[in-house]
Amino acid sequence: MGKNLVYKILEKHLVEGELVPGNSIGIKIDQTLTQDSTGTMAYLQLEAMDIDQVSTKRSVAFVDHNMLQQGFENADDHKYIQTVADKHGIYFSRPGNGICHQVFLERFSVPGDTLLGSDSHTPTAGGVGMLAMGAGGLDVALAMAGGAYYINAPKVVKVNLKGKLNHMVAAKDIILEVLRRVTVKGGVGRVFEYGGDGLKYLSVPQRATITNMGAELGATTSIFPSDERTLEFFKAQGREDEYLELIADEDAEYQEEITIDLNELKPLAAAPHSPDNVLEVESLTDIKIDQVAIGSCTNSSYEDLMKVAQILKGHKVHKDVSLVIAPGSRQVMTMIARNGALADIISAGARILENSCGPCIGMGQSPGTDGVSLRTFNRNFYGRSGTLSASVYLVSPETAAVSAIYGKLTDPSTYDIEFENLTVDEFFVDDSMIIKPSITGSDVEVIRGPNIKPFPLSAKLKESLEGKVILKVKDNITTDHIMPSNAKLLPFRSNIPYLSKFCFNTIDEYFPNRALENKGGFIVGGENYGQGSSREHAALAPLYLGVKGVIVKSFARIHKANLINSGIIPMEFTNLSDYDDIDMMDDLVIEDIINQLDSSHLIINNLTKGTSFEVKLDLSEKDVKVLKAGGKLNYMKSLVMNKAL
Amino acid sequence: MGKNLVYKILEKHLVEGELVPGNSIGIKIDQTLTQDSTGTMAYLQLEAMDIDQVSTKRSVAFVDHNMLQQGFENADDHKYIQTVADKHGIYFSRPGNGICHQVFLERFSVPGDTLLGSDSHTPTAGGVGMLAMGAGGLDVALAMAGGAYYINAPKVVKVNLKGKLNHMVAAKDIILEVLRRVTVKGGVGRVFEYGGDGLKYLSVPQRATITNMGAELGATTSIFPSDERTLEFFKAQGREDEYLELIADEDAEYQEEITIDLNELKPLAAAPHSPDNVLEVESLTDIKIDQVAIGSCTNSSYEDLMKVAQILKGHKVHKDVSLVIAPGSRQVMTMIARNGALADIISAGARILENSCGPCIGMGQSPGTDGVSLRTFNRNFYGRSGTLSASVYLVSPETAAVSAIYGKLTDPSTYDIEFENLTVDEFFVDDSMIIKPSITGSDVEVIRGPNIKPFPLSAKLKESLEGKVILKVKDNITTDHIMPSNAKLLPFRSNIPYLSKFCFNTIDEYFPNRALENKGGFIVGGENYGQGSSREHAALAPLYLGVKGVIVKSFARIHKANLINSGIIPMEFTNLSDYDDIDMMDDLVIEDIINQLDSSHLIINNLTKGTSFEVKLDLSEKDVKVLKAGGKLNYMKSLVMNKAL
Repeated sequence: MGKNLVYKILEKHLVEGELVPGNSIGIKIDQTLTQDSTGTMAYLQLEAMDIDQVSTKRSVAFVDHNMLQQGFENADDHKYIQTVADKHGIYFSRPGNGICHQVFLERFSVPGDTLLGSDSHTPTAGGVGMLAMGAGGLDVALAMAGGAYYINAPKVVKVNLKGKLNHMVAAKDIILEVLRRVTVKGGVGRVFEYGGDGLKYLSVPQRATITNMGAELGATTSIFPSDERTLEFFKAQGREDEYLELIADEDAEYQEEITIDLNELKPLAAAPHSPDNVLEVESLTDIKIDQVAIGSCTNSSYEDLMKVAQILKGHKVHKDVSLVIAPGSRQVMTMIARNGALADIISAGARILENSCGPCIGMGQSPGTDGVSLRTFNRNFYGRSGTLSASVYLVSPETAAVSAIYGKLTDPSTYDIEFENLTVDEFFVDDSMIIKPSITGSDVEVIRGPNIKPFPLSAKLKESLEGKVILKVKDNITTDHIMPSNAKLLPFRSNIPYLSKFCFNTIDEYFPNRALENKGGFIVGGENYGQGSSREHAALAPLYLGVKGVIVKSFARIHKANLINSGIIPMEFTNLSDYDDIDMMDDLVIEDIINQLDSSHLIINNLTKGTSFEVKLDLSEKDVKVLKAGGKLNYMKSLVMNKAL
Repeated sequence: MGKNLVYKILEKHLVEGELVPGNSIGIKIDQTLTQDSTGTMAYLQLEAMDIDQVSTKRSVAFVDHNMLQQGFENADDHKYIQTVADKHGIYFSRPGNGICHQVFLERFSVPGDTLLGSDSHTPTAGGVGMLAMGAGGLDVALAMAGGAYYINAPKVVKVNLKGKLNHMVAAKDIILEVLRRVTVKGGVGRVFEYGGDGLKYLSVPQRATITNMGAELGATTSIFPSDERTLEFFKAQGREDEYLELIADEDAEYQEEITIDLNELKPLAAAPHSPDNVLEVESLTDIKIDQVAIGSCTNSSYEDLMKVAQILKGHKVHKDVSLVIAPGSRQVMTMIARNGALADIISAGARILENSCGPCIGMGQSPGTDGVSLRTFNRNFYGRSGTLSASVYLVSPETAAVSAIYGKLTDPSTYDIEFENLTVDEFFVDDSMIIKPSITGSDVEVIRGPNIKPFPLSAKLKESLEGKVILKVKDNITTDHIMPSNAKLLPFRSNIPYLSKFCFNTIDEYFPNRALENKGGFIVGGENYGQGSSREHAALAPLYLGVKGVIVKSFARIHKANLINSGIIPMEFTNLSDYDDIDMMDDLVIEDIINQLDSSHLIINNLTKGTSFEVKLDLSEKDVKVLKAGGKLNYMKSLVMNKAL
């Protein structure tokens, strides 16, 4: 059998493992992207590895999330990212240049390359045949340092697009149809590879809408071939030299297949509160709306906004509707400002927001109480708009714009319009807001506002580990217990010393002080320790406070991995009853830990009680190396210094 | 002697008092404006007066402050204002239509009319010869109900402008020069009336920059004559029918006079942290800047932005500068979007913010730590930008734009440019985002989100007043003690029941509960009670909690007035030592209070102690009527019902 697109790319990038669906593999990453919300931490991690210049072919730092700047923290983060990028050989896309995925697609995407981004919608670049995946900041930092990225080799689902979309049916409706069929859980462990005779009618921006929102399937990523339409896009972006044709073999093998007849597709909407709660718009008419929001990395391309402008031209936004529009990039904004489309949009009564993620990530434009909001975005989770009582429907720009005029959810297919000037022979190219990094970064001073603190590093493991039990907790401790995340603490995500003052606060407000006074120690806990969100901060704050090991009845999987990454030893009681025999402030010691770690068990002496007990270790060979090195960053650092990558 | 402009207008509008500088006078208000931050409370007060339709010639409700919408409260406020305006005969300028003062100037200003606005920059409309004053929300509500507005008849200062501004010297520099000479305190009790041969070179938008920032002088207002240049503006706005020539008599009398030779004026900047800390820009060069912000009600006209666009055209914003631009109105935005100027601004790398007050009122775009920000705004008070360590300089759009290119504070006079297309024969007029009120509002349903609670009203005074001492405090209690105002509480300015839970919280957190449990009572305090800000909420929360009287050693003036407006009786100990003889929870009674109020003293019986003591009243005849009616709104309501206005 021939090869599909995904495995063609994986094969070229494979550095570890066997390329069989389900197998763990390591792949080389060609490009990385970060946005500012996750990027600050990713660059602190990169700095902690003591690396001069990134090893990727191209890495880009974007600023698009925290643009409201209500306090000094946002601007400080922007400046930190700008200077740290300059120093380490990373391109910097300035605030105001646009949403990372839109700008990346326009100016950096390369068919056949791998991309790792610290944002879940990184798959957008799959629209030009790039294998683009979202990951945590640490993984992106490691990739910048030249490390491989580890995934399970995916199943590949062929999405066979037949025919052509009808009048006012959009690319958005295609991905909504996929979500309707596959659901938000159905994509796990899979890559969705698009094909079929319908492809030729889909432009790159339309394809990017589909790969972008493919993230909602829970998929590893989504991808389109790089073909004639892709070449068109690269030519119009003045980047023909970065174009590469890339298509699946005719007899390519796929693990699953879906067929969508585009001729049959109707305008769809994802009703509250899930992107897979998909219904036909015609079944939802007569829903009065309060807000329409157009933009986000899903639907803010030139083509999208040209359609919106032409629909709105000569009409007025309904008096009970607030229409907000955030173009996706400075390229889009400049083009619609030059050709009169923006003027048409403004004349209709739309409110123009800055080129940024904006309301899609809850940065402003929360609807009123019980408000109904139509959004061209990718997520309508409960509460995400900032208004708990709001009902958010995800729709195409066509549905959004027509509905804004009528003041109610309206099927656009009956709206009489012939679009013009959607295709672009030459995009307005001006990269002046993308700052190229210094050739050598050694002279660059990294500017750190007072809220930006170095990433905490653990030390290399010593011969024995001694410390007091500085906290004893019960079953089902969540990462929210360990490290609360709320509006008050969010601006401090890059300030672990500050955050650590709130570590375990809801359980024991004296814990941070006790930890510092005793120079760290051990935490003892019950079943399912560390359940909940995947946030790294729930391991980083304990690390900063000197926690050396966590001894519990059982761990939640992701938190355990985060502890290992931080160099904190995760241990489980062999005999659960030993939990009862340990008290707060007991003095524990683990002798000869370097050797004991290589075994599946180790012995802990309780000096206070004069007893000993056994704990289980469930660690891979690599985990042990990471723990001995004092955490993943130290481990990577040693590899880099030994040129062993 | 002939009459100046100010007294010509005052004379036509006088309803009470004698027109002599310093005398208290009541004047009829032709038009009112509100913005959303103060407007919500003003309309709650209007509703509390049970008035069907406003009595003004024209009242307009704007939304321009709380546009970020981080939570449901902002959108709920917008909807409340829209519907309450519709019901009561008030024009509604939708969110996105622009900054109140800019839009009012364009579409509603009328030479010779009086305007009262619940915003301190209401004097902007003085640019077309309107007598425009800022006031509290209650005064604006009373004016809408047909009540007179009371001021002390002002001294009039003639500002004699001679000659013509040099290249790149701006209207902003004229008002900065006035501030330099007069200081932020020097305008109190005065109106600044502009005249001289220099007037003919100043367009209406330029004049409006000057009258706008005249607010920083502490002046009652500022005004320009309505002349040929004014006629030009009204013609270009398609409002020639509302134009009226209005100039001072040649031999008009003025109390003071200032002369400014425009030929001598250089570009100026107000250095941190006061608008009157004015220096020549050429003495400030080589200050590296981090941010430039262009916009606000001071400098966001078409003319301002055309200059900015022409300066920026073909250049790029310096890599270390964030340039943010918020056009003043949809009219301005549409025109620069249509003629390419906006495209030039975007191409240069500026970030475009929504038409609104934005960063001028601290709504976003806070500079980074120790950031230097040049702003075309009107205030650079310490901390107002949202960043305590920031240094904000107030400058003209010319200075701002040139500096944004060079990355440092730059004297624009050496910048070589010939401006084009600054004058407008025909503005783009489209009032579709201004909603005309219903002809009869009786059918209109006012929509109140859960955060919008009715304005608390006191009851008509009864024969005797009895209650416990529910709080005893010491000297120098501020309005911040009484009713804290912080980021957490700001969204609740229209929710007195919620706010009242925080009343006196920093002193006694049980006070609100104690007050409610005892159905109100008396507060006892020391010297200078109620010092600090003028916020009405420091009287409204105690009113809601049932406070009937406040007995102190002495009052701060404004808070005492606010207590009277709320129907709470302000009393001062005749013998200061009586303060010591009262304890918390003592039961007090004032017999025959209706008659006692007419005297300058009254007797309070302490039932718990079995003693009596005397307190002083210092009340005008009108104050007594207001207190007997149970507050100013009840008093106005009775006048309206008796047609006695």
